[in-house]
Amino acid sequence: MRQVFHDELEQVSTDLVELAHLVGSAIRRSTSALLDADVQLAEQVIEADQEIDGRRNQLDLKSIDLLARQAPVASDLRAVVTSMRMSSDLERMGDLARHVAKVARLRYPESAVPDEMRASFLQMGHVAERIVAKVADILVSQSLQGARAIEEIDDELDELHRSMFARLADSRWEHGSSAAVDVALLSRYYERFGDHAVTVARRVRFLVTGEIDGVDDEEVDVDDGV
Amino acid sequence: MRQVFHDELEQVSTDLVELAHLVGSAIRRSTSALLDADVQLAEQVIEADQEIDGRRNQLDLKSIDLLARQAPVASDLRAVVTSMRMSSDLERMGDLARHVAKVARLRYPESAVPDEMRASFLQMGHVAERIVAKVADILVSQSLQGARAIEEIDDELDELHRSMFARLADSRWEHGSSAAVDVALLSRYYERFGDHAVTVARRVRFLVTGEIDGVDDEEVDVDDGV
Repeated sequence: MRQVFHDELEQVSTDLVELAHLVGSAIRRSTSALLDADVQLAEQVIEADQEIDGRRNQLDLKSIDLLARQAPVASDLRAVVTSMRMSSDLERMGDLARHVAKVARLRYPESAVPDEMRASFLQMGHVAERIVAKVADILVSQSLQGARAIEEIDDELDELHRSMFARLADSRWEHGSSAAVDVALLSRYYERFGDHAVTVARRVRFLVTGEIDGVDDEEVDVDDGV
Repeated sequence: MRQVFHDELEQVSTDLVELAHLVGSAIRRSTSALLDADVQLAEQVIEADQEIDGRRNQLDLKSIDLLARQAPVASDLRAVVTSMRMSSDLERMGDLARHVAKVARLRYPESAVPDEMRASFLQMGHVAERIVAKVADILVSQSLQGARAIEEIDDELDELHRSMFARLADSRWEHGSSAAVDVALLSRYYERFGDHAVTVARRVRFLVTGEIDGVDDEEVDVDDGV
């Protein structure tokens, strides 16, 4: 019974890693769609998000089934419940990639990003790719060091986000209010993407150490207005 | 055993209703703080969000304990898992009220909202209060009609959000990029507040009918740029 349980839990973990890879692909392609004003690619990301949602639902049904059949307790129960939460975190990261793609689509054939800010968004995209790759890693390794690395990568995203908002608040901003709104929302999407990665990292830490502190979904928020 | 289970599940439901009331208070006060540029009130909302987070954590621990001790199956298991998700939805609604309060605090002693848009934000605040009151209702009544009403109230929020973005995109916008960003984010916070209410409504429908369609956290998104 216990062996069956652990095999099935292993399968859930494998599914989570696949979900993380799909999310990584989504954020990479949505950044491309944004910077190249590539409406076809944007459509693909939007379409592919349904696959992510579908997989997440399947994964949750599997977990509920596991709860019903195996009635796990203690750390086993904690592992199943935490997996369900991580699937939700990953699904939300996928949604944020879709949000980026939707802004790209909305502004096509223009680019939503003023030329002078392209480099910053490229950097945000790269950092976001790195953070989700690290998430896939720690889902398997359950490494506390990896979890800490995710918080550090998130600090980079927060810093980029802050500098983006500083530029928007600068009186020399000359691209108009509509571009300001696009840039603000896009920057926020990447920043939130990082927050959810941190939430997964904290959940991994919770699984390993049993410490519940800081596993709150939204505590990692950075102030948008800073 | 089964009676004990149902008593405990009843308690979880009561806790969820209390959480909804706290969230209702938070959004009402954050709207006041925003429109009156009342920094003390903003601080109170930000502070009170810790209470919401704490209650949510307590509620989840209760639910996990319930799973461990009673090992529910079928519809009972579904009820516990769904309760945990609804506590997460409500907690996020509380976070959005806190986000509004933070913008109010950041702009103090100025108001973050240009005069001409005060009426719109007042209306968004009222609609948000109505939607969370309705959420508290259906947590108890499990009324499908109530769930539908929530979707209709959310349509009002979406419409207000769209008209806010139309004003931001208008070339006659004269309040500068920083105010545009504030208005865009604030409007999005209210709109997301409504989305989470709809998610709770869909979860209630899922509990009553067993239909899983549309219980995805983010499917109810409205395009920001429309």
